[in-house]
Amino acid sequence: MLEKLFSPQAIALIGASSHPEKIGHEILQNLITSGFKGPIYPVNPKPGEILGLASYPNIKAVGKPVDLAIIAIPADYVIETLRECGECTVGSAAVISAGFRETGHEGLLREIEMAKIANYYHMPILGPNCLGLIDTITPMNASFAASMPLKGEAAFMSQSGALCTSIIDMSFAIGLGFSRFVSLGNKAHLSELDFMEAWADDPDAKVVMGYLEGISDGARFMDLARRLTKKKPFVAIKSGSTSAGSRAVSSHTGTLAGSEKAYEAAFKQSGTIRAGSIADLFDFTEAFVMQPLPQGDRIAIVTNAGGPGIMATDAIERNGLRLAALSSDTMNSLLAALPPAASVINPVDLLGDALADRYKEALGLVAKDQAVDAMMVILTPQTMTQAEDTARAVVDISLESKKTILACFMGDKNLKAAQKILKEGRVPNYIIPERAVAVLKVLCEQKKWQDTPVQTYERPNIDKDQIRAVIDGARKGGRSELAEAEARQIISSCGVAVPTSKLCKSQQEAIDFAEEIGYPVVMKVASPDILHKTDIGGVHLDIMDARAVRDAFDLITFRAQRYMPDAEIWGCLVQKQIKGDGEVIIGMNRDPQFGPLVMFGLGGIYVEVLKDVSFRIAPFSKDEALEMISEIRSSGLLYGVRGSRRLDIDAIADTLIAVSNLVTEFPEIVEMDINPLMVFEEKRGVMGLDVRFVLKL
Amino acid sequence: MLEKLFSPQAIALIGASSHPEKIGHEILQNLITSGFKGPIYPVNPKPGEILGLASYPNIKAVGKPVDLAIIAIPADYVIETLRECGECTVGSAAVISAGFRETGHEGLLREIEMAKIANYYHMPILGPNCLGLIDTITPMNASFAASMPLKGEAAFMSQSGALCTSIIDMSFAIGLGFSRFVSLGNKAHLSELDFMEAWADDPDAKVVMGYLEGISDGARFMDLARRLTKKKPFVAIKSGSTSAGSRAVSSHTGTLAGSEKAYEAAFKQSGTIRAGSIADLFDFTEAFVMQPLPQGDRIAIVTNAGGPGIMATDAIERNGLRLAALSSDTMNSLLAALPPAASVINPVDLLGDALADRYKEALGLVAKDQAVDAMMVILTPQTMTQAEDTARAVVDISLESKKTILACFMGDKNLKAAQKILKEGRVPNYIIPERAVAVLKVLCEQKKWQDTPVQTYERPNIDKDQIRAVIDGARKGGRSELAEAEARQIISSCGVAVPTSKLCKSQQEAIDFAEEIGYPVVMKVASPDILHKTDIGGVHLDIMDARAVRDAFDLITFRAQRYMPDAEIWGCLVQKQIKGDGEVIIGMNRDPQFGPLVMFGLGGIYVEVLKDVSFRIAPFSKDEALEMISEIRSSGLLYGVRGSRRLDIDAIADTLIAVSNLVTEFPEIVEMDINPLMVFEEKRGVMGLDVRFVLKL
Repeated sequence: MLEKLFSPQAIALIGASSHPEKIGHEILQNLITSGFKGPIYPVNPKPGEILGLASYPNIKAVGKPVDLAIIAIPADYVIETLRECGECTVGSAAVISAGFRETGHEGLLREIEMAKIANYYHMPILGPNCLGLIDTITPMNASFAASMPLKGEAAFMSQSGALCTSIIDMSFAIGLGFSRFVSLGNKAHLSELDFMEAWADDPDAKVVMGYLEGISDGARFMDLARRLTKKKPFVAIKSGSTSAGSRAVSSHTGTLAGSEKAYEAAFKQSGTIRAGSIADLFDFTEAFVMQPLPQGDRIAIVTNAGGPGIMATDAIERNGLRLAALSSDTMNSLLAALPPAASVINPVDLLGDALADRYKEALGLVAKDQAVDAMMVILTPQTMTQAEDTARAVVDISLESKKTILACFMGDKNLKAAQKILKEGRVPNYIIPERAVAVLKVLCEQKKWQDTPVQTYERPNIDKDQIRAVIDGARKGGRSELAEAEARQIISSCGVAVPTSKLCKSQQEAIDFAEEIGYPVVMKVASPDILHKTDIGGVHLDIMDARAVRDAFDLITFRAQRYMPDAEIWGCLVQKQIKGDGEVIIGMNRDPQFGPLVMFGLGGIYVEVLKDVSFRIAPFSKDEALEMISEIRSSGLLYGVRGSRRLDIDAIADTLIAVSNLVTEFPEIVEMDINPLMVFEEKRGVMGLDVRFVLKL
Repeated sequence: MLEKLFSPQAIALIGASSHPEKIGHEILQNLITSGFKGPIYPVNPKPGEILGLASYPNIKAVGKPVDLAIIAIPADYVIETLRECGECTVGSAAVISAGFRETGHEGLLREIEMAKIANYYHMPILGPNCLGLIDTITPMNASFAASMPLKGEAAFMSQSGALCTSIIDMSFAIGLGFSRFVSLGNKAHLSELDFMEAWADDPDAKVVMGYLEGISDGARFMDLARRLTKKKPFVAIKSGSTSAGSRAVSSHTGTLAGSEKAYEAAFKQSGTIRAGSIADLFDFTEAFVMQPLPQGDRIAIVTNAGGPGIMATDAIERNGLRLAALSSDTMNSLLAALPPAASVINPVDLLGDALADRYKEALGLVAKDQAVDAMMVILTPQTMTQAEDTARAVVDISLESKKTILACFMGDKNLKAAQKILKEGRVPNYIIPERAVAVLKVLCEQKKWQDTPVQTYERPNIDKDQIRAVIDGARKGGRSELAEAEARQIISSCGVAVPTSKLCKSQQEAIDFAEEIGYPVVMKVASPDILHKTDIGGVHLDIMDARAVRDAFDLITFRAQRYMPDAEIWGCLVQKQIKGDGEVIIGMNRDPQFGPLVMFGLGGIYVEVLKDVSFRIAPFSKDEALEMISEIRSSGLLYGVRGSRRLDIDAIADTLIAVSNLVTEFPEIVEMDINPLMVFEEKRGVMGLDVRFVLKL
């Protein structure tokens, strides 16, 4: 769909200008100097030449096929012009002009019109309110960015145009090149989703980078990201994720920023790598572009200085990576090769007087060790240090070895030449050990993600007809909140056990049922009109005998009639009182961007005070459900600590995926929770005690 | 004490060499080219001239006063030479030579000898195994570092010599200057403590920076750091703090690395700013050197790009700072001054076409707002951006205003000139918004720390004689673990309530006492020989009446005699059974570097599963004790949540400082815990139920 946008044969610039201070001039100049090989048609109402090219009064007047129209004219004329482009079968368009949703409602309506035109004419439209796009492969600079970035293997998109200018400028400093560089603007038609889709199969894009403020369609984002990230790394900054930041986003563009928790879950579940800053974006991308992914997380450090070796070691431990335990063969060979004061235990310390050949020999030995997955070469510029020769040695080893190598040549002025050699030899350099380790961490995660098979989302059997009937019944009655019996019926239909219970219309019926199921029992008022039963004394616990059942029945119905005289009272619900071995909570609400966000936590204070909960976006797999359970801090309590037995983790996970499935199938459920879900010892299952559902009416 | 080291009138270089590849040659060259104004005496057994200076066969032969002797000769000759220096009343020495504790036991003995010489002759000695020292004020480069750093206001010390070379090299890139630059080496005599002491009152040191692997004397470090940090910022990297990192430290130098928790507590309690990496070290120092501390944490952002404004806003929220709410006056003035599409709500968005004058006007308005404590000026290099003029405008505002201003000119090539103007105008620039915010956070913390009065360590009345008697009794008996009655006596003597109890020798005595204090009671076997009472069924709970007391007495004494026939049985301890409204744990153990480390947490799973605990090094103040309580994640449970009442926080804090005082006064207590400390509702106090003490024998 984006071929015409990225590989146009001919480009028209509508709004081309001969005034050097106009954007329409700048873009034309960029188009010409970028080396674009096809014809460029400047369009301007005034006749004449611009920058040596014949100008056309309008797009129709061009009279030749145009694959890409760049539009840089006042907002008022954009829609009309786009329609003309459509009529002339222009292949694609990029609207640079501002003055759309960022200025208010009328602007938003214009964008809706724009999307209609794009769909009607099958003419993809980038923008509006963007910097344009750059393609170093074609090549073409269809933007008003001051410089064209270096050619390279990273594809970049940004929802902030201004950030593009900073990113290009910074990219020169580290020598990072781009294949494609896109300013998304207001995303009236094309959004990050289209580029994620296009770049998944683009051989020129080894890494996809993004700066995102809001995401256009959470569910499609997840699908596309999952597909993309199994093939190549997708590194993204998501800003506006704190509450203060979201307010700033709203004043900046029109996108509603999803909640931070939903984003975290979405990125994690889709293998999207979250960059905390532009520094992360660059650092991660450099390594992905230049080096292979490590096979595992065992890191060897080779250094000419103890201090930085320790810093790296600290960082490795903090990041959950492992310091490789070198084989005794390797250590013996190192012992033979290195001076006696050197350390042959990882971190391998070559000492301050290490010359390039000592680095080369040691690195070669370490690289061959089966117990090493990745290497970090640290160099401090000491008196005898041969920085450039050492850089060449590192590059040689990197070319020979299939293992990941990152350099940490710690310095600036004295190491510039060496750092250049490393970069040209495709060994990324980080002057701070902690940065190199942060990068290794991300490389390991990407490898693990790519190796994990695509998750399948189990669809446990749920009785859809029954659930549909319950939901429709409530909606017909105009009730957004389900009555207890209805809620229990729904989760039963999903295969979640609920306590034995019966709606009893008389004292005697209640006593008979209680005797049948055995004490203790719980009794609750049964009424479609009473939702907050506890508030009116409508719930009695610990009922131990027939007399207590009788008393409870009368008290409950008497009070219900007194406090809510208009309520229809069906009687009392009598229920077996359950004592579990543990209590958990499963909840769900709908995130505006990603849809059903399922929460898991232990009951009571663990959720309320400690906020010790985990989230996933439904649907998710059983493996993901098990991860959800294990990642809360208090999960130890479920696995059996302090002499307590392990609880039925498997049954909790099954309940989580049943909920995942339910809320995916029934989008009218906007909120639900099972609180508590009683959990028994291993193999003994779970039971949903209280269940609450809120429907969209 | 360090005047001779830092401001010598005359320097001798022992081990001066005419061979260019020798360290003794390099140091001499550095001394000469650094501009040192006093005489330099090269010392070398071979007669002749070195680098144009007459050489002396030994230090005695110099025959003139020498303030500083630099020693760069083989380790075997160092001790003898130092002694000669002492005899010649040399003022101070710096031992560059390696071959000491890092090579084993013999080397360590040499260092001990070295310290003795230093003390005997009152001749402070730096090193051994170090790079030397640099002083840009004197000026003097008495090191073998390849370059002399820029002159500036930061004083730096490092336990890693190699790191010094990297730091100097990197400092040129950002233009950071140093007043003094010290490589500590093995710290045989002078350590970080001496420099912390000297630089606290050194007007040339505006900021003190350190790279530390181990700390020589935890208690003195805390004292000196507290004194230093109230005057100026002390920013330190502490590496080797993870367990893997500590192993690396041990192989690198000989210092025992303190536990991470103890370091965290020590840094927090002493106001030492922990830098996570060299990047932090530089970023924080730059701002401390160039800008005033902010009066508060209300940050205003002025930007020409929405995206980076959002990133900064996110970072502000994540770091616990506040986005300033601009006054309506300021917003009205901004409205009048800025184009209609601009945002006058913080973050103030000047739009992409903002020229320098728009920045200057907006910044001027924001700087005057009483609701703003600090400002962040973000600039992305867009088409019309006047980077240099804007930089000048920022510098002008910074000179006029007393408020903190940090710049975030996001770019490299196109912004180099502007960034230089900022730096020369003493406005630090960070190309990543998140870095600028991290710096603001640290500036705010330093301000808050400097404003907090020095904490006084309350010494609540403890009955020292009684405690001494108990401890001596146990030690005489050869018992390192105290019996229950002894432990109770000690905490009683510290003013901590314990349950009413009595050692009863007979059934009847036990019944009478139980009736007197009321049921329920707890009964425990009383024996100096039985420490693990529960294991032999020596503890009975929930005793509700006289019959049960009788049964318990017999069962307890019978079992004790059966399982431990040799134990001396005194009878049973009868104790009021206490039900508190909450349970907490107070524990203490001794960190090898910082001494008594006191822990606080809630009882049971909060400590064991959630590891939700806080630490402080004793002695600490009541304010610090209150902080300890509030900083655990589950503290909400103490302050009253979910309808429960607030517990007696004040009594917990009093118990914490009683423990702090106890373990400070009695260093023979190596470990103790009160578990549980029962806590009652507000104003109702606490009670220590189980107390355990381990003594050093």
